Amino acid sequence: MSHPQTTFRQTTFKGNSVLSRRRKTVSRTTVHAQLEQLRSTGRYDCFKLEWHPIYADKSMWPVPFHLFWDSDIAKWIEGACYFLVEDYDAEIDKTIRELVEMIRGAQQEDGYLNVHYTVVEPDKRWSNLRDMHEMYNAGHLIEAAVAHQGYYHDNLLIEPIEKYVAHIRRRFGPGEGQLRGYPGHPEIELALFRLYKATGSTDAFELAQYFLTERGNPTGQDGKHYYDWEMEKRGEISWQRPDAYPEHGTLWYCQADSPIVEQKTIEGHAVRANYLLTAVADMLYLSKEDGRPIPNAEGWSEALHRLWDNMVDKKMYLTGGVGAIKQWEGFGIDYFLPQGTDEGGCYNETCVSIAVMMLAERILHLDLDAHYADIMELCLYNTVMTAMSLDGKAFTYVNQLGSTEADKSVREEWFWCACCPPNLTRLFGSLGGYLWDYGHEESNIFINVHLYTGAELTFDANGLPVTLQQKSNWPWEGKVDFQLSAPSSLRVIIRLRLPAWSKGAYVLAPFPQPGTVKVEKGYICLYPAYVSENPSFSLEVLDFEPRYLSPHPYTNQRTLTLARGPIVYCVEDADNPWETNHFKDVFLRTDSKVTEKLVTDEETGEEYVSLKSKCWKQSISTHASLKADGDSAAPRDLIFVPYYFRANRGGKGQMRVGLMNGGIESGVIFPERL
Amino acid sequence: MSHPQTTFRQTTFKGNSVLSRRRKTVSRTTVHAQLEQLRSTGRYDCFKLEWHPIYADKSMWPVPFHLFWDSDIAKWIEGACYFLVEDYDAEIDKTIRELVEMIRGAQQEDGYLNVHYTVVEPDKRWSNLRDMHEMYNAGHLIEAAVAHQGYYHDNLLIEPIEKYVAHIRRRFGPGEGQLRGYPGHPEIELALFRLYKATGSTDAFELAQYFLTERGNPTGQDGKHYYDWEMEKRGEISWQRPDAYPEHGTLWYCQADSPIVEQKTIEGHAVRANYLLTAVADMLYLSKEDGRPIPNAEGWSEALHRLWDNMVDKKMYLTGGVGAIKQWEGFGIDYFLPQGTDEGGCYNETCVSIAVMMLAERILHLDLDAHYADIMELCLYNTVMTAMSLDGKAFTYVNQLGSTEADKSVREEWFWCACCPPNLTRLFGSLGGYLWDYGHEESNIFINVHLYTGAELTFDANGLPVTLQQKSNWPWEGKVDFQLSAPSSLRVIIRLRLPAWSKGAYVLAPFPQPGTVKVEKGYICLYPAYVSENPSFSLEVLDFEPRYLSPHPYTNQRTLTLARGPIVYCVEDADNPWETNHFKDVFLRTDSKVTEKLVTDEETGEEYVSLKSKCWKQSISTHASLKADGDSAAPRDLIFVPYYFRANRGGKGQMRVGLMNGGIESGVIFPERL
Repeated sequence: MSHPQTTFRQTTFKGNSVLSRRRKTVSRTTVHAQLEQLRSTGRYDCFKLEWHPIYADKSMWPVPFHLFWDSDIAKWIEGACYFLVEDYDAEIDKTIRELVEMIRGAQQEDGYLNVHYTVVEPDKRWSNLRDMHEMYNAGHLIEAAVAHQGYYHDNLLIEPIEKYVAHIRRRFGPGEGQLRGYPGHPEIELALFRLYKATGSTDAFELAQYFLTERGNPTGQDGKHYYDWEMEKRGEISWQRPDAYPEHGTLWYCQADSPIVEQKTIEGHAVRANYLLTAVADMLYLSKEDGRPIPNAEGWSEALHRLWDNMVDKKMYLTGGVGAIKQWEGFGIDYFLPQGTDEGGCYNETCVSIAVMMLAERILHLDLDAHYADIMELCLYNTVMTAMSLDGKAFTYVNQLGSTEADKSVREEWFWCACCPPNLTRLFGSLGGYLWDYGHEESNIFINVHLYTGAELTFDANGLPVTLQQKSNWPWEGKVDFQLSAPSSLRVIIRLRLPAWSKGAYVLAPFPQPGTVKVEKGYICLYPAYVSENPSFSLEVLDFEPRYLSPHPYTNQRTLTLARGPIVYCVEDADNPWETNHFKDVFLRTDSKVTEKLVTDEETGEEYVSLKSKCWKQSISTHASLKADGDSAAPRDLIFVPYYFRANRGGKGQMRVGLMNGGIESGVIFPERL
Repeated sequence: MSHPQTTFRQTTFKGNSVLSRRRKTVSRTTVHAQLEQLRSTGRYDCFKLEWHPIYADKSMWPVPFHLFWDSDIAKWIEGACYFLVEDYDAEIDKTIRELVEMIRGAQQEDGYLNVHYTVVEPDKRWSNLRDMHEMYNAGHLIEAAVAHQGYYHDNLLIEPIEKYVAHIRRRFGPGEGQLRGYPGHPEIELALFRLYKATGSTDAFELAQYFLTERGNPTGQDGKHYYDWEMEKRGEISWQRPDAYPEHGTLWYCQADSPIVEQKTIEGHAVRANYLLTAVADMLYLSKEDGRPIPNAEGWSEALHRLWDNMVDKKMYLTGGVGAIKQWEGFGIDYFLPQGTDEGGCYNETCVSIAVMMLAERILHLDLDAHYADIMELCLYNTVMTAMSLDGKAFTYVNQLGSTEADKSVREEWFWCACCPPNLTRLFGSLGGYLWDYGHEESNIFINVHLYTGAELTFDANGLPVTLQQKSNWPWEGKVDFQLSAPSSLRVIIRLRLPAWSKGAYVLAPFPQPGTVKVEKGYICLYPAYVSENPSFSLEVLDFEPRYLSPHPYTNQRTLTLARGPIVYCVEDADNPWETNHFKDVFLRTDSKVTEKLVTDEETGEEYVSLKSKCWKQSISTHASLKADGDSAAPRDLIFVPYYFRANRGGKGQMRVGLMNGGIESGVIFPERL
């Protein structure tokens, strides 16, 4: 089936679920607030190709402040188009039309379309693919154009964009006279696959395939690595490098140190890595679906799974956050997962978790394993949802697990590098496409349900209408009621994800006859015999009890985190105002009882389950022996709230996800001083 | 009193102590083995100013392989001169004379004396003080010259070196027409203070004082930071930077981001930081001793203690190792003390711990507090001693607390950057000077005993001979017998360090009369009344029982390490051949009994106390829940050996200092996969 950014149109969110409320906030508030930011910062008018004072700012190198403005506009258009589908807004409609006019007007005769290299450095086009984001911006323009066409059904945006793609395609590729370049920041690859699927352009497919295949070629251009070749042409030596490159020749930063199929571990900038792998997964899926065999498909598939496993097993926080290291906004070594700045990391950019969701969604088409949907859900309800305030007006870029005085738990209205906020808009706009997948499978119709909420899916199967409705109070309760409406001539298979944290415990009602239901790779497969007999059925995922999570011991994080269903919890000073040191000295014991309570927050109106347990606090001095006085110290009540809920109620900005497990054992602390 | 590199001549090591044996090995073997390396690598002849093929190698930037050759020769000369004092060797004597001739011959007419900038880039002298080590090399030549004069009592080396110092002094300083430069790698400062003390040259004192004061001045040269000014002159932009500079403008790398007195925390390259602070301490001490008031002495003193405390309390491993980060061979953030490469750090360069010893020794002259001597001893017996094999022929540069397959626990015969091996030679050569300090104090003679071993101190007090002998089996036993021989006309105060790990428990015999002994800042002060009555006395430092150390909880290292007296222990596969994963999955319990045994190693002849306890091993998989099966798993015997003893007996190179404390608690490990 197609991309979630297309199929979301078949889904309508129903009821008052967390997801539905959040989508309404984005539609009614966020889209407008972000537009206001675009206007006030100068971005809105950038495609007019007039000079803006910020263009003269040379304090950053090589990337100036305005380099991603093209993509900020494109991502906003894309997200806004998604929301127009079910929540029409005349102002937004008018604004999109105006922006599209400006973009059309900004295109150069030869098809080139980029603000910086038209206004600021017109003689340096394509001279620094490694750092300068021309293709990244192009990729977002492509995605905007596909979304625009999907809503407006006209060619006003896709026409100039296809012209731009043709321009790029002429310049770069494996042919004679072409340059062997590829983008430093992947994005255009996944965009080109979407363009291919939307328009059938095999040029787009082939260009994306070329970018993926050429990447990391050590001798691609005149016997040199492309990035070395272009660097030499710019007259730079490799010790002259952006701040994100800790050492010279840090090509792993942009996943270009070796061809993708040879990469052993996932490294570097985490958004780039996940956009890249999303494209790889899509290439594998589309080539299978459309019968376009690609060379070494097995090698690509192995690399995809190898890099995914490395990320999820060894480089992912239990919030779904990814990318511990601030300097290169990316991956540290295996198991390096400190909770905050004071421990040396925990960057966890919002865009990465959105990208992980995109990647997981693509992999589910290749390998229907609940693990991928588990991660998709984990990211959604935790690192992604925590990145926006409940009022829809403030955002995070970095999503730490523990605050410090230097980096409090707060949100901002905008960022100079504004990738995250409009990415949230795009994701929430197309979220319906992530809930489920559907299509034909031999003589059956299938619906694979990945995420539970209140929603209705409607699609056309061989000209016949199929509707599946799900109703639930997820993520607070595990009961989901389904109602299928499909012509009796259709054989329908429904697969329901069973999250790993449920440990496989569920109740299906009506109770299935033998042979009509089977669990495969974490999906409960309801065969046509069951479905036709029971168009109304309900699933209850069990084990919604609060549970303790501990990171892998090799992380050296001997902490406890409470989770319940897909929701990871944190503690905040808003609920625990006695705390003064960001909960660093607070510990839990696994044998303390945890109680839960359904709360409606007065100020925000948010409804959620809060948790309560006991904690102890130790005084930890700089040196001298520590007394193991945890046992004798009086326990306090500790209130936990969902991580996504943090930083919505004022307070001192003190927050922590993982709390010390069991206190500090006796034993002498070094250095000993008399 | 004077520097340990001078006063060591008053000390004779006696008996068969660990220190005495090691000194003999260095004298008989190491000095020769290092000379052989100097010869075979081309260093030996470098002052002939002939071309060497390695000079053409441009693969490293900006520092070429041979840049420190001057200092390698200088440090070897310095160390060799120390050993000639009590262990004359005709070959070494002849070699030193030959090298000195070559150095003299290498000096340019104007006094300049540097191999690289005479042979390779003669037109670029002093163009890159930040990176190119001209002054660092000069500093080591100064130290060699002082040592040479101390042994040979001639001016053959010190004469050209003083000429070179005058050359530098003309060029750099606060006067009109002078450049406001200072060395990127501090070392010359402490060397100049030694030169001042040896020759009385106030020029040397003032030049060092200038270097310390000017360092970090943001507007020193033409309104700019000197390093920015010279960088611009070289035509570089700040994003062009050595690999040790993670981001552009990383001036903290060489402690030049702000004036020293304003620095809040100790940062950057750890050898540089400790050489620099050694000079600061010496400046404070010498200015007091010689009545040369320096501006803002209080501010300097506060900075010295502030940076020391930051290092020792928050950035030092319990082996005395310092400098967790490989990239800049230096400090990480507070409490970032991972045990090995797989955890992201643990560089702990050998030279740093030698520098910490030098610094601690200097601070003891300013502030007689046993804490500084504790750290000096900790470094000596652990990070420093572990850096040389028992045969004296192999060395470490990096001193991790836990090995990995990528970085096994091994030693090398030499390094391209060979700072550490000859630094060990220098230290062991002058070690006698670190044991104790002595001098006049009002109408008394004092002897402050910092380190215990078998040794004799002899000095002249107002023309009268004083001798103090100490005999002990330290570091294995705490009993130390002293014998003072001094004319009865002298009032002698003896102060004996009481290590912090003794928790103040000691026995002094004969038992003192009231008022004749007092403990101050960790030193047992024996007043003249006691000393004159008891020229023979003995100290027994108690609490030599094995003890468990745990790093500060903020390190996230919830590990246990065994220590006994000043010795920190490790486990090795040589004693525990069942281990296959570098002891990462092995845990201890504090309630397990520890037994000790005096061992003589068959192969090496080394005598030491080994420890034995129980351990448990857990199997830790990548994902899926961990079972807390530690309790049910059968315990194994685990043999511990001194950390300094590691990697002397073959084996697989698996070693660890800190072992998991108490096993992994139950609790679910993320990610959960069904």
